[in-house]
Amino acid sequence: MQTMGLSRLVLVNPQRYPDAEADAMAAGASAILHAARVATSLDEALAPATLAIGFSARPREFAGTALPVRAAMQEALGYAASSDVALVFGTEMSGLSNTELSRCQIVATIPAVADSGSLNLAAAVQVAAYELRVAAHGDRVWKAPAFEPATQEEIELLFDQGERALIAMDFLRPAQPKRLLPRLRRLFARARLEKEEVNILRGILARIEERVQSAWRK
Amino acid sequence: MQTMGLSRLVLVNPQRYPDAEADAMAAGASAILHAARVATSLDEALAPATLAIGFSARPREFAGTALPVRAAMQEALGYAASSDVALVFGTEMSGLSNTELSRCQIVATIPAVADSGSLNLAAAVQVAAYELRVAAHGDRVWKAPAFEPATQEEIELLFDQGERALIAMDFLRPAQPKRLLPRLRRLFARARLEKEEVNILRGILARIEERVQSAWRK
Repeated sequence: MQTMGLSRLVLVNPQRYPDAEADAMAAGASAILHAARVATSLDEALAPATLAIGFSARPREFAGTALPVRAAMQEALGYAASSDVALVFGTEMSGLSNTELSRCQIVATIPAVADSGSLNLAAAVQVAAYELRVAAHGDRVWKAPAFEPATQEEIELLFDQGERALIAMDFLRPAQPKRLLPRLRRLFARARLEKEEVNILRGILARIEERVQSAWRK
Repeated sequence: MQTMGLSRLVLVNPQRYPDAEADAMAAGASAILHAARVATSLDEALAPATLAIGFSARPREFAGTALPVRAAMQEALGYAASSDVALVFGTEMSGLSNTELSRCQIVATIPAVADSGSLNLAAAVQVAAYELRVAAHGDRVWKAPAFEPATQEEIELLFDQGERALIAMDFLRPAQPKRLLPRLRRLFARARLEKEEVNILRGILARIEERVQSAWRK
């Protein structure tokens, strides 16, 4: 929850709370656990919410809207702008009962292999929290440290030098060039060369030309 | 992994394997654990793969492509059609090292709150496996059991009857209807009435009309 940006946890009739084992497992997020609201019934827990989204792995008689978790979390976000939305999860053993689901306007399902059993509770909460995060903030991620890209001119100079080196080594025959140069162009286009990489490659090519010429002189 | 449709697990230098505690936690998916391949190095593990996607929560010096997990799993799927793709996760404590990441062509990141710590390993694997499942099979979910929807004609008959009942109760004044009927239409349009619901509502309305008339007769 904390890593995905959620902070409000409500526990309905917890068997043990507070609990040392839960504290230990919460690790760096124990503040969320300590601030949890404890309700004595699901209705009490849901009272302030304008939209309740229940999670279920399996088909049920359910009167509301059934949505995949991605669409359900987008719906949640719309409501959350102006009021409280509850994501409702059942117990590890049996999930939500039909009576509990009847308190929800939407039932959300996480896509899974049929007949493979359902996700455990923590895994289901993780997927829901992740989809909510992406719905709220998009999924832009950190960019790898930017290296300065090479210019077209620098790259063409590299290709010229490379062609000369291949000819000097008698690997490329100017009269029968075949598909060698286009294939190399394709490779380096995909790699999107950086300035420094062009310099490194040109250094290698210069050394090749030097050695080939000195071998030729002997 | 099993619930999301993945089956091939490779362990690099596991501290303990096989291990009774791991067996217990695998629960219904112990077949995947028992069939795991054990490699003595990451290079050995990755040898058959044509694309390796490493997971990292934080920016690094990384030479490949940095993508959010959703885009990375779509990319994985393209390669997986014809060859082996590896999803590479580091240890619970420290994730992947720079050297390990250098073996990957793509680094995938799961969107998260900045400075909130990273997901634990199981949570990260769950999100990756979920995104891969959605990329491969879409996120169509089971439909709630289909009840037969009402026809427009049935709904209009309901509205007619409802209007009569409201007039009989003197709640609606035909000379000053205001916004009552359009508001009720809007509510029932949103609910998308089913045939049986129309019957129930018409039964209630019939009873109302009956009682109102008998009260009027007295």
